Amino acid sequence: MSVMEMSHRSSEFEQIIGEAERDLRELLKIPNNYRVLFLQGGASLQFTMVAKSFLGEGRSADYVVTGAWGKKAVESAQIEGKVRIPFDDKAAGYRTAPAFESLDLDPQAAYIHFTSNETIQGVEFASDPDTDAPLFCDMSSDILSRPVDVYRYSGIYAGSQKNMGPAGVTVAILSDEALERVAGNLPPMLDYRIHAKNGSLYNTPCTWAIYVTGLVYKHLLKLGGIEAAAAGAKQKSEQLYAAVDGSGGFYKGHTEPDSRSRMNVVFTLPNSELTSKFVAQAEAEGLSGLAGHRSVGGIRASIYNAFPVKGCEALATFMKDFQAKN
Amino acid sequence: MSVMEMSHRSSEFEQIIGEAERDLRELLKIPNNYRVLFLQGGASLQFTMVAKSFLGEGRSADYVVTGAWGKKAVESAQIEGKVRIPFDDKAAGYRTAPAFESLDLDPQAAYIHFTSNETIQGVEFASDPDTDAPLFCDMSSDILSRPVDVYRYSGIYAGSQKNMGPAGVTVAILSDEALERVAGNLPPMLDYRIHAKNGSLYNTPCTWAIYVTGLVYKHLLKLGGIEAAAAGAKQKSEQLYAAVDGSGGFYKGHTEPDSRSRMNVVFTLPNSELTSKFVAQAEAEGLSGLAGHRSVGGIRASIYNAFPVKGCEALATFMKDFQAKN
Repeated sequence: MSVMEMSHRSSEFEQIIGEAERDLRELLKIPNNYRVLFLQGGASLQFTMVAKSFLGEGRSADYVVTGAWGKKAVESAQIEGKVRIPFDDKAAGYRTAPAFESLDLDPQAAYIHFTSNETIQGVEFASDPDTDAPLFCDMSSDILSRPVDVYRYSGIYAGSQKNMGPAGVTVAILSDEALERVAGNLPPMLDYRIHAKNGSLYNTPCTWAIYVTGLVYKHLLKLGGIEAAAAGAKQKSEQLYAAVDGSGGFYKGHTEPDSRSRMNVVFTLPNSELTSKFVAQAEAEGLSGLAGHRSVGGIRASIYNAFPVKGCEALATFMKDFQAKN
Repeated sequence: MSVMEMSHRSSEFEQIIGEAERDLRELLKIPNNYRVLFLQGGASLQFTMVAKSFLGEGRSADYVVTGAWGKKAVESAQIEGKVRIPFDDKAAGYRTAPAFESLDLDPQAAYIHFTSNETIQGVEFASDPDTDAPLFCDMSSDILSRPVDVYRYSGIYAGSQKNMGPAGVTVAILSDEALERVAGNLPPMLDYRIHAKNGSLYNTPCTWAIYVTGLVYKHLLKLGGIEAAAAGAKQKSEQLYAAVDGSGGFYKGHTEPDSRSRMNVVFTLPNSELTSKFVAQAEAEGLSGLAGHRSVGGIRASIYNAFPVKGCEALATFMKDFQAKN
């Protein structure tokens, strides 16, 4: 029987989800007083769940906005309650992940929310911020690519489809303390407590995606865990940023150097004709999916955990050749 | 590249989801003024979405409760607004799917909700009810097993994992008229209009489950469509009910004869010792998963579309043998 045919209440599936949780705990060194949940609906549903759970009446939450996903998180939170925005880099085109110490954060904030990596603008926080208020983070696009000090967070969530596995499962990691503060009378499917109480089996989860995600965790442990993933992400992204920085201005990085994403390398060419030519010729050489998001333009190389070092080598070589010929 | 690795915004995936919708429209003869959505979160999230969308302030909705799933739908709806329950068969142990004409329905109801098949108690409506109020139905466990007059419904929803494919995708079929009545300012992921506007690609859907579900639609069309599925469901369930009815009272059907489910055949034995013995001996002969839900006891044979006729023949034979020996 395939996992796709199994009951989620079978002992076989309970072992699958149990191993996935155990392996993720090992990878991220998740403390015992944190719960790991396998949910549905992606980060987009987490935007709503976090706000519904923790943005109580008369309270306000701080949202640090470093790109398109942070903006979406704000829009969903504003439906549920009051949101303050101590940082929004929109005017500059989203190029910076600010130091939290430099921000005018609300000491009374119900929580602070940020996006560790912005996929469209290629903006990433290099380390875990230090705050007094409860901290929530959307790690959808860089989870498992660097060590995380889980203790600094009240909650971490991530859709699976970038670094963890196929689409369909969303991981939420919540401190017991946060769980105790969840608002009352929520719709059951939006209530973290119900999912925690039922071991992520309140209703039928996306069993296949949980299974494959679990296999990815095992694969990553075998490769050397988070440290190996972090070394790979560093090596791959530095190769591409070196090609950008060594181009004498032919290629221009979109992001401030200390906020550069190790997952999405975003850069521009001198004009849109050259950009189109770059994308087409790269595609012809098997380097596909390089056109930047329409809101930024230029080139975006998405190099998540599963992307091979060789792919980045090939792209860096192509970049040099293309520049020489143009 | 596997479908699990594809971008949900690729033209390849757009073709996959487009074909799945087209085939489902053909199978269920879905009129052009109905939208087909592929969502996440199962029927459990639909319980909340239907109520949030259509149970406006000052309004009330009628919930016809014929088993455990209908009861869960009520509990989620009550969080959102006022619910009337014109029928709840709990006292009798959930054995009947009532004729809607016999019920005291609220002519002013925002909508009427029911569950076409209850998996735990094995209670199924034999045909589409006729009502004046907008009708919503949870068809999770018997969709694609009989022709449905979609025009009678404002909305139909179904988790995929019984008759359609692997867990992870939920189909919602809504009339354009219903979509126009959806309440304002909902969380984006709970807003049918946003999913409709974005062709079910507002955020990353469960791509793999949509792909496999689409293959099941194609398989079903090849087998002869809904009519073939309905003939199979009739043949399989009648075989088991005949074994129950022909046992002279050794086996007793849980459900009133005209409300018997063609998906979940529920019956009891004279005592719990014989029930345990039945389950164990059946298991030894390769007939597994027959223990009834703890709330009903006895035996439950779940014989969804993919279950073979031969399996029902084998169970009917086993039932006769077991009775003869006990």
